Amino acid sequence: MTDIFEKCKRTHYSNEIGPELAGETVKVTGWVHEIRDLGGIVFVLIRDKNGITQLTAPSKKLSEEMMADVRAARKETIITLTGTVQESAKAPNGVEIIPSNIDVINVSQLPLPLDTTEKVEAEMDTRLDSRFMDLRKHDVSAIFKIKSQMLHTARNYFYDNDFTEITTPKLVASATEGGTELFPITYFEKEAFLGQSPQLYKQMMMATGLDNVFEIGQIFRAEEHDTLRHLNEALSIDAEMSFKSQTDAMNTLEELIKRILSDISTNCQKELSDLDHELDIPTEPFPIVTYEEVIDIVNSRDVEMNYGEDLNRAAEKVLGETMGSYYFITEWPTAIKPFYVMPNSDDAEKSTAFDLMYRDLELSSGAQRIHDYDLLYSQIEAKDLNPDSFEKYLQAFKYGMPPHSGWGMGADRLTMVITGAKNIRETVLFPRDRRRLTP
Amino acid sequence: MTDIFEKCKRTHYSNEIGPELAGETVKVTGWVHEIRDLGGIVFVLIRDKNGITQLTAPSKKLSEEMMADVRAARKETIITLTGTVQESAKAPNGVEIIPSNIDVINVSQLPLPLDTTEKVEAEMDTRLDSRFMDLRKHDVSAIFKIKSQMLHTARNYFYDNDFTEITTPKLVASATEGGTELFPITYFEKEAFLGQSPQLYKQMMMATGLDNVFEIGQIFRAEEHDTLRHLNEALSIDAEMSFKSQTDAMNTLEELIKRILSDISTNCQKELSDLDHELDIPTEPFPIVTYEEVIDIVNSRDVEMNYGEDLNRAAEKVLGETMGSYYFITEWPTAIKPFYVMPNSDDAEKSTAFDLMYRDLELSSGAQRIHDYDLLYSQIEAKDLNPDSFEKYLQAFKYGMPPHSGWGMGADRLTMVITGAKNIRETVLFPRDRRRLTP
Repeated sequence: MTDIFEKCKRTHYSNEIGPELAGETVKVTGWVHEIRDLGGIVFVLIRDKNGITQLTAPSKKLSEEMMADVRAARKETIITLTGTVQESAKAPNGVEIIPSNIDVINVSQLPLPLDTTEKVEAEMDTRLDSRFMDLRKHDVSAIFKIKSQMLHTARNYFYDNDFTEITTPKLVASATEGGTELFPITYFEKEAFLGQSPQLYKQMMMATGLDNVFEIGQIFRAEEHDTLRHLNEALSIDAEMSFKSQTDAMNTLEELIKRILSDISTNCQKELSDLDHELDIPTEPFPIVTYEEVIDIVNSRDVEMNYGEDLNRAAEKVLGETMGSYYFITEWPTAIKPFYVMPNSDDAEKSTAFDLMYRDLELSSGAQRIHDYDLLYSQIEAKDLNPDSFEKYLQAFKYGMPPHSGWGMGADRLTMVITGAKNIRETVLFPRDRRRLTP
Repeated sequence: MTDIFEKCKRTHYSNEIGPELAGETVKVTGWVHEIRDLGGIVFVLIRDKNGITQLTAPSKKLSEEMMADVRAARKETIITLTGTVQESAKAPNGVEIIPSNIDVINVSQLPLPLDTTEKVEAEMDTRLDSRFMDLRKHDVSAIFKIKSQMLHTARNYFYDNDFTEITTPKLVASATEGGTELFPITYFEKEAFLGQSPQLYKQMMMATGLDNVFEIGQIFRAEEHDTLRHLNEALSIDAEMSFKSQTDAMNTLEELIKRILSDISTNCQKELSDLDHELDIPTEPFPIVTYEEVIDIVNSRDVEMNYGEDLNRAAEKVLGETMGSYYFITEWPTAIKPFYVMPNSDDAEKSTAFDLMYRDLELSSGAQRIHDYDLLYSQIEAKDLNPDSFEKYLQAFKYGMPPHSGWGMGADRLTMVITGAKNIRETVLFPRDRRRLTP
């Protein structure tokens, strides 16, 4: 018995087989995508990670045994095809393969839970229930290949700019930054929570002297929202920088996004084409609008919004239509931003907080942070939070905390923008929401 | 008032100031590390991320105001020093800086919770309680700079070898691989758990056609151990490969480790020197011993171990002494490995499982996995687990699951090996164990 790994070892991925290989013998391994039996000739499309190859079996030229093997192919069964490459203008990549051997690697049961060849996509719930099958569609896997490239570029940007990668705990005691519900955990005899963000930890890291740190990790929020933009478990890209201002932090964020767009444009052409999505790559600096200008824009579009209110959904929508593409909102009222945001030095009612938006979608929030212990303490009290719950965090501000700035960005939301996905569930392999905890 | 960020903007990190800059004006920002006032001359050591610079203040050459500013320096206060570089054989980097201006950026309270200049290190608990201060010591921060490089290299290895980065959920429903205790979470009206490993998810990803995937993420185990090698929240490097054998998986792991060692040797000389640690870089292939050979070795060292038993601590210790450095253990009994491990084709009592060890420390476990639905189902039953709990996982094996292999490696443990740390708590910024949930 031949070793199964020897048996299925491919010589090429399907995208590597073109007319220049005509006459050569190749071995491809993949899933049976489609079978068309026209009687005298049978076509089998074989799908692998990078594309689709056509097996062509003309009964006049092949043995009965070979034709029987070809006709035995079933959808989504894994086969290894050995055969000769032949030019064929109508076939994928301009080639077809005339089989000399077919090995069945693993048989698929039928019927399938999802059709991998369908043009009209199934309901999201059906797709997520059989996510492994859903991901066999190249316009679905393309999203995750792009997301992988996005994370790769993000980390390279950080490494190139002298950031240290950190991993902060997701199991946390009571102290949190507030503003959201947390998931409680039974941690031995204690109660603990899942971290809503690495905010407090990355700020504590500023007191270590490492200067620039980043983390790409999961965050957990027990909010009962049911929207196309929220999940209860999300991936967050977090950066924090000592001795850097709000403007420095905004520049870092803008540079990072532009580098991501550039890399994806260069390296993910096939995936963008599978998605039929054109990347929006701004060449100009991201526009900046102040919070007060936002109110004017929103009000001028007949949506109510008063000073001191956050943007509601209607406001986001008309603002997004007006601004298009990427833009910053600055000079947020201190009162509606978290306690750790530094107020402006000339007008403490306004703050150094900024949001990065793409059309109507909030991608990132950041700010210069408060580095003065007394001010931080009083801001915690001003938000009706209990400074005692922040004891360990506050301690880091007593012994030489640098002025610092930073931001956090939703990686899944950025993936939505880059891939054109309308539902955040499209951008997460196994999303978690109010109703879904499996697979 | 000058903007604080302008005020503290350094021209150089301390390691960038050498005798070649003699006579030039530089600006350094950092924490006051040590002050020595000899009356006629005052020395202040200023510490930043990359090293230490000496401020030298001879009272004969400086104004009274400047001498007063120098003498006002307090340990761990952040200052920005502007001054002229002067050669000085005895000072760090062979230079000292004669001050022309000192700005105090943020004052430190005294006394300090930890002494950053001490030679004898404080108790681990004291250090972890004030981790931000502990990390100011260069022999502590060195561990995390090396860990950051390790993760960077690991990801580059995966990207270069055509792996797609994935993020799998940490919030999971009941189905788990068994073998450990889980932390329960209240997930709205349901009960959920924190994932003990991405094992089941990365295997499901093999059914998507993405072929090679990796994840670097946190895992959670509610075990009540209290050792120097276990934490309840740990970082795991996971790889899974379709159409790849046990040998392929072992080669991948060995290549990855050798590339990490090579990159760290090249890029982290200062950190290794701060740690006073010499990197162990094997040039030969990692030795392989079978489980049965391990029993012989252990028994020959007068430690009891019978066939079918896992290695106890005493066995690990004598085995580590015998083997030294990195080595694989193969041909584990199927009975003591998880249900998803493929038994050997010629002798189902033995399996394709392998462990990678460094001396007495287990770094990684891997195997060829079972890809046949019926065999997997029966192995779940054989382990007294309930196949119904694995419904979503098992579904992925029904419709064309490729043969595949993979492994998971403890990133914190690998950091221990690479940095010479004896306690895993040294390698995690904010460790979580039975007793510790803060900071």
